[in-house]
Amino acid sequence: MKPAIPQGTRDFDAATIYKREYILDIIKEQFVLHGFEPLETPAFEKLETLMGKYGDEGDKLIFKILNNGLDKKDNPDAVRQNFENVLSGKNDSKITQRALKYDLTIPFARYVAMNYGKLAMPLKRFQIQNVWRADRPQKGRYREFTQCDADIVGSGSLLNEIELSNIYKNVFEKLNIPVEICINNRKVLTALSQLCGPENSMTTLAIAIDKLDKIGLEKVLDELRKRELTEDAIEIVKKYLATQELSTNEEKLENIATLLGENENGKEGIEELKTVLATCPYLNIDFTLARGLDYYTGSIFEVKPTDVKIGSIGGGGRYDDLTSLFGLKESVAGVGVSFGVDRIYDVLEESKLFPEKISNRKTVLLINFGTEYVAGLSKISGVLRGKNISCTLFPDAKKIDKQFKYANRKNFDYVLLYGEDEQEKNTVQLKNLTSGEQSNCSVDEAIEIIQKS
Amino acid sequence: MKPAIPQGTRDFDAATIYKREYILDIIKEQFVLHGFEPLETPAFEKLETLMGKYGDEGDKLIFKILNNGLDKKDNPDAVRQNFENVLSGKNDSKITQRALKYDLTIPFARYVAMNYGKLAMPLKRFQIQNVWRADRPQKGRYREFTQCDADIVGSGSLLNEIELSNIYKNVFEKLNIPVEICINNRKVLTALSQLCGPENSMTTLAIAIDKLDKIGLEKVLDELRKRELTEDAIEIVKKYLATQELSTNEEKLENIATLLGENENGKEGIEELKTVLATCPYLNIDFTLARGLDYYTGSIFEVKPTDVKIGSIGGGGRYDDLTSLFGLKESVAGVGVSFGVDRIYDVLEESKLFPEKISNRKTVLLINFGTEYVAGLSKISGVLRGKNISCTLFPDAKKIDKQFKYANRKNFDYVLLYGEDEQEKNTVQLKNLTSGEQSNCSVDEAIEIIQKS
Repeated sequence: MKPAIPQGTRDFDAATIYKREYILDIIKEQFVLHGFEPLETPAFEKLETLMGKYGDEGDKLIFKILNNGLDKKDNPDAVRQNFENVLSGKNDSKITQRALKYDLTIPFARYVAMNYGKLAMPLKRFQIQNVWRADRPQKGRYREFTQCDADIVGSGSLLNEIELSNIYKNVFEKLNIPVEICINNRKVLTALSQLCGPENSMTTLAIAIDKLDKIGLEKVLDELRKRELTEDAIEIVKKYLATQELSTNEEKLENIATLLGENENGKEGIEELKTVLATCPYLNIDFTLARGLDYYTGSIFEVKPTDVKIGSIGGGGRYDDLTSLFGLKESVAGVGVSFGVDRIYDVLEESKLFPEKISNRKTVLLINFGTEYVAGLSKISGVLRGKNISCTLFPDAKKIDKQFKYANRKNFDYVLLYGEDEQEKNTVQLKNLTSGEQSNCSVDEAIEIIQKS
Repeated sequence: MKPAIPQGTRDFDAATIYKREYILDIIKEQFVLHGFEPLETPAFEKLETLMGKYGDEGDKLIFKILNNGLDKKDNPDAVRQNFENVLSGKNDSKITQRALKYDLTIPFARYVAMNYGKLAMPLKRFQIQNVWRADRPQKGRYREFTQCDADIVGSGSLLNEIELSNIYKNVFEKLNIPVEICINNRKVLTALSQLCGPENSMTTLAIAIDKLDKIGLEKVLDELRKRELTEDAIEIVKKYLATQELSTNEEKLENIATLLGENENGKEGIEELKTVLATCPYLNIDFTLARGLDYYTGSIFEVKPTDVKIGSIGGGGRYDDLTSLFGLKESVAGVGVSFGVDRIYDVLEESKLFPEKISNRKTVLLINFGTEYVAGLSKISGVLRGKNISCTLFPDAKKIDKQFKYANRKNFDYVLLYGEDEQEKNTVQLKNLTSGEQSNCSVDEAIEIIQKS
């Protein structure tokens, strides 16, 4: 049998893990500094928790888990009927009752609904976990990938938008990725749809406008024509989208205010944008920003790197109600942002922005000259490790050039030799593999050399 | 719909996550100091990678994933036949091709076999990831749990056993858990089985002896009688197990050497034990230690807390061949240890050994007196966060007692007040929620107070 990894999944080796941790540590640090606390939910949820929450397209991408012990069923005919149900597109709890989580939002909503009485509101949680989607694998799209979300629920205050914007700003500054952090407000889009005629929904407009980057203005307008927008309405949408040509937030706001006139939603949306911008002047208003998901009701965000063409590397927004899906009477409003970890990784790689050495910890390979030196090496490595230096004792007394080759291949910082001479004189030989420098010294001196480098 | 979490799984809230991280950080630190590098493999593997590797009992506990798009199949009759196959206990790739990983060893073996030519040997990897088993949930046993393994493969040297023993010793010392780290060698068990008669396998003996703790001596012997061991053989096993009554490693080794006589396996096993003990005198020989898994061939380990009755919290051993299952011609020997993270958590909890405050980071709640102070609060929190202090701006200008109640409930270290007076005088009021001490001071002075506490 030839071993293989499932399509759309990846093994992460040490070098990749260190780079991913570099990204995640920076994000986590900002989450924690801004008062967010971690949450972890299981890899799988009950099927009914997930189904029907992501639209028809989403539902099809959910990985369902086969119930266990099917082969022990005492009534094969009954089980056959259950299979028939699955065949005809229904869910059948006799066949599958669990599914891998598709995102972090719905499991979070389930958690909040389940524990509502016990949770102090507002609740600020971050969650960094894998999710799974049965998407067709392609470059940059995987069946297992990491989502990284922060949400504040139980508060409608715009201060939350300000805090989340600051997190975006700080994270990408720390990562040295130049970005544009865009903001819009769904209330402005609602106003636009109302202006286009009472029969048009905000969602129709949002879904069409969301494709602007991909398909261009003319095709967006065509799509809206197909949705039976009048030519007058199309003209309004054109004027609306044209604001993106203006260079300052002030000009954009002024233009939109004129376009939307006395519409209450429009006025509210514009007011909210102004409030957030007053504290976060680094944000860019982008009225063409729509976000595909239909549960956003207020501010929406998107982050794009300015120097790399890769689409968005972050996004989020405000929602009015997270938990009514789970029968909670109290409506839990909130706002959240998320980071696209895989794409951020690609941006850092492409722009060569990963630090050359991610860990400051020095690594030493202790050369093995045979069993008579093991006790000594064991003692030396204990002292070095006590000083936070990572040591590997080469386990077999192979030829010294093989051991050095290993040291180079595994990128050790130092090689330490301890043989007959050194044992006698109670010294070690330390070789810096980068500079080639070699020292004959005591263990304490060796530690000093390593720590200073 | 009433929200619920799947049976046998858990949500981890912040307090639990911090405690789990406390454990995992200590373990990871030792792995890294001993030269191990991280590896991560996907949550699911191809079904054929996992099936047939864990015995019949294990196979039944593997969570299989339903193929996607079943409902779109254009030939329902064919799919029906596929279901029939699954019904009759066969695997059918039209129904399921993937399964959640059951442990970390087999995915690691798959990784090594897949990448053998590219990997520098010896390979030292650690892996801390979740695994899933469709076990009946019960106290302390979950369907999703974390495994934590370190293995060295590509080397038969006993130095590896020494290094891994040191990791056990250091980790439990750092966790302040008094433990007994037990060692035995499968070669000694092989010798015993040979002594009991040529038709007896080491595995039979190992499986029976492994139950000693649970079922007691008499039942173990009964089980061996059922396996048709002669009464002479039973007498030998009794003498063998009686060595556990002896108090020192030396006495045990001497006794066993006499019992096993000239048996080559026995002599080898004893010699190996002596070599490891020479550098790791803190190990306890336990000849009744057998370990259930049948792939161990040399040293075996088990760690038990001395003050809490909970069974083993760590275990491992040496195996001759990791990868032949995957068709690799080169046989890859290795040795590994694993930590039972969930049980370690329970031991620390039961013995009250978790540090009172796991994080040193101070947390501050900034009281919200209304929108006119938001700009000021935003600035102050920026300065505090720059000094590594975690800040939460209470998002809504609720009554001050409600905000204080929140601060207490969420265990903030400090509350910071910034209202009309403070804005005018460019000061803040800082209240230590533990001591009750209150200071009217500048932001810099507040930082100093917080950092000193």
